[in-house]
Amino acid sequence: MAEDRPGTDGGMAWEGISPTLEDVAARAKVSTATVSRCLNAPQRVSERTRERVMEAVRALGYAPHFGARALAANRTNTFGAIIPTMENAIFARGLQAFQEELGRHGITLLVASSSYSPELEEEQIRTLIARGAEAVLLIGQDRTPESYTLLRRRRIPHVVAWTNARGEGPVSIGFDNRKAMAALTARVLEQGHRRLALVSAPRAGNDRARERAEGVSEAMAAHGVPPADLVLIETPYSITNGAEAFARLMARRPRPTAVLCGNDVLAAGALRQAREMGIDVPGEVSVTGFDDIELAEIVTPALTTVHVPHRAMGAGAARKLMALRNGEDVGASEELEATIVWRESLGPAAVG
Amino acid sequence: MAEDRPGTDGGMAWEGISPTLEDVAARAKVSTATVSRCLNAPQRVSERTRERVMEAVRALGYAPHFGARALAANRTNTFGAIIPTMENAIFARGLQAFQEELGRHGITLLVASSSYSPELEEEQIRTLIARGAEAVLLIGQDRTPESYTLLRRRRIPHVVAWTNARGEGPVSIGFDNRKAMAALTARVLEQGHRRLALVSAPRAGNDRARERAEGVSEAMAAHGVPPADLVLIETPYSITNGAEAFARLMARRPRPTAVLCGNDVLAAGALRQAREMGIDVPGEVSVTGFDDIELAEIVTPALTTVHVPHRAMGAGAARKLMALRNGEDVGASEELEATIVWRESLGPAAVG
Repeated sequence: MAEDRPGTDGGMAWEGISPTLEDVAARAKVSTATVSRCLNAPQRVSERTRERVMEAVRALGYAPHFGARALAANRTNTFGAIIPTMENAIFARGLQAFQEELGRHGITLLVASSSYSPELEEEQIRTLIARGAEAVLLIGQDRTPESYTLLRRRRIPHVVAWTNARGEGPVSIGFDNRKAMAALTARVLEQGHRRLALVSAPRAGNDRARERAEGVSEAMAAHGVPPADLVLIETPYSITNGAEAFARLMARRPRPTAVLCGNDVLAAGALRQAREMGIDVPGEVSVTGFDDIELAEIVTPALTTVHVPHRAMGAGAARKLMALRNGEDVGASEELEATIVWRESLGPAAVG
Repeated sequence: MAEDRPGTDGGMAWEGISPTLEDVAARAKVSTATVSRCLNAPQRVSERTRERVMEAVRALGYAPHFGARALAANRTNTFGAIIPTMENAIFARGLQAFQEELGRHGITLLVASSSYSPELEEEQIRTLIARGAEAVLLIGQDRTPESYTLLRRRRIPHVVAWTNARGEGPVSIGFDNRKAMAALTARVLEQGHRRLALVSAPRAGNDRARERAEGVSEAMAAHGVPPADLVLIETPYSITNGAEAFARLMARRPRPTAVLCGNDVLAAGALRQAREMGIDVPGEVSVTGFDDIELAEIVTPALTTVHVPHRAMGAGAARKLMALRNGEDVGASEELEATIVWRESLGPAAVG
């Protein structure tokens, strides 16, 4: 078979004969079609047959070649996902649900992390396509036009999550970052706070961060508080950055009475810094987060934050992508609810 | 070119003409060799040439085909990593350092998450090879024999991290989990604790968890405390599981005076439960963690834990894998130091 030529075999240097689909079929005493079905659509093969074939696959150390699999069935059963970061757990639970749903259908997930760089994400999209990813999950709306051109030209099904669709564009499953942050800000204002600060991720190339910041301004305007009064600090997501931003805000006179954070990681850093400075939260200053990752519950005081529907979003994205891959109609984009979780870090504005 | 035939192209269904290496070379006015160098060894091409070629790549929506790249250079410049979980940040910082080091050399990282299942990991190794991964990073020693057979037969360079080598076996870069946990346990015993409990991850298929548990017993024996007295609970890593395990331990009479946790995530759960039960840590009960992820610093009381050299391990693993891929000798396995970090959660044993 052509794809047994060294050089077309994963680009790895190797010598000697590598087992072929035929070798596996012969050992398992089944047809090559059955072998490829086992590899590409296991759910369509009886457990006993699958067992026998997989035993042969293992015994021979067979690894389906790119070419072999492509010819055996026009499928690689490999999906890709590109998330902005693996450094914290923001995307972890959603990604886990995404992978579990794909796994139930025999699809393997390969993940890349773009460090919030649209250029790096474009390279990773290119790599995932070159490596045979049949469909790709992306986070948010901001990316290079070339990324979408590439996905369209190569007919790669893709879904964007952690955001809701704005008019035209790819199918999305997620929530309205702006609306959610505006709702949280309204609660803060209802507690009497007027001197608000926002610790945001850099908004360039991050539509979620941008929409959350817009949500704060929107709610301020709606409550007759000049959005221009908002003190905004941009800093990458990390506990240390959150702590530093909080310290800078506390050095201002007058101090903000409420510090809204772009996510729970920054808020956890703010709480740590408040403790170090002996500032009582929420007695003197209120702090809020966004995401509701496990972290939000274990910090003291526990964070009042926006609960993101991580698992519903991840599992739903998997179902949409599989449907698209199978040529089915998935209908319009899907908006999920992001709800506010009241805990201990938000209280009434200190008087004066 | 052969690899332009539909069916060998990533297994995706697509129609029409897809741009070839030649199209890119023509548009960029360079040789196809230069194009492939840009894609496979960017550091060997001048910035200006690379700019011109990448502009053409983008303009044409070119995605290097598996076959095309394999022929253009016997390289895919794609490495794989399989980590046990993405649900918490245990592996996040090490993986980030691993990816950053690879990125500096134009190598793209694709990550899979095995949910601590050796069988799933074997499938993912098979997929990564089939998708053209040139080298693979794995965590720990426990996996199916078939996984190693597959890697050997296909000549895939691999390195195991988060562990130190035991005699024969793959090149490793990591630390001695047993020694580190024994050292921490010694500190606990020096604080007068005799009724010890360990909240461990399931040890089956997880050599790190097994070695940490052995370390506890080893230190107890060395201090004349019968290892049989250790109360051991196995539960998957999660904050909630840590909280539940702590509650079960506190229901015992006599209560353990020190609860060692297999990692910081379980320990954070134990602290949360202690707070809910009104149990003072470390006044009434001491709690320790393992890993020293950011979480350890922000919980109250801050965790006394074992600091794992996440970034050194990740970057070192990348350098070893690239050397192996380039056919260089990387010498023996590398053992890094895991040190103990004193914070607030470990104190003297309460009297009586």
